[in-house]
Amino acid sequence: MSERIPVLRIGDVLLVSVQFDLEDQTVLNLQEDLAEQIVATSASGVVIDISALEIVDSFVGRMLSTVAAVSRVLDARTVVVGMRPAVAITLVELGLSLGGVSTALDLEKGLAKLGRPVGSAPR
Amino acid sequence: MSERIPVLRIGDVLLVSVQFDLEDQTVLNLQEDLAEQIVATSASGVVIDISALEIVDSFVGRMLSTVAAVSRVLDARTVVVGMRPAVAITLVELGLSLGGVSTALDLEKGLAKLGRPVGSAPR
Repeated sequence: MSERIPVLRIGDVLLVSVQFDLEDQTVLNLQEDLAEQIVATSASGVVIDISALEIVDSFVGRMLSTVAAVSRVLDARTVVVGMRPAVAITLVELGLSLGGVSTALDLEKGLAKLGRPVGSAPR
Repeated sequence: MSERIPVLRIGDVLLVSVQFDLEDQTVLNLQEDLAEQIVATSASGVVIDISALEIVDSFVGRMLSTVAAVSRVLDARTVVVGMRPAVAITLVELGLSLGGVSTALDLEKGLAKLGRPVGSAPR
């Protein structure tokens, strides 16, 4: 299994789909890859999909905040999408506020929040 | 670790990012989820990103062909994106032709191939 989560590009938005529980090294790799990719592609936004995560603990919460902070100093906005209702409840119960992280219900709404609508019909 | 790969939606295109080596059950779940999602969302296209895969063997090759075939009977087109050069060489050496599967270099080109360009500036 790869220790790196792929960073996809849609226009000038980077997309990361987190699909498994994150280990320390994976998170460090992801932060590094994202920072590099933001600079390399002049990305203006980052969307992180966590719909596959059933548990978001303080470690993952901190990772999301750090990614958002790193993106911000590189002039990119971060939107976290796909959070499960149970995860939202847990975050609040844990007192984790995801400081500085925008959220949207799904990828499409996240892209819209970044001002990057997707064409839904052939043009 | 979840046995299900999340299926993301962008407009009327579904996006699957394959990030780890696939086991039989994961593939079956993915095929089922994709078929359900295509019907539920009236999706017209499916993009499968395999940029994280270092090895594509006959099992994965067959999976890609099957997904494409299922999508086709549900009136959706499938594009596989992010194939590594080494994977392409291996596929050809193995005699795997990915019958019926369209490919594109990256997610953006894949979306364009499905006629779903992504806005790259705020509108």
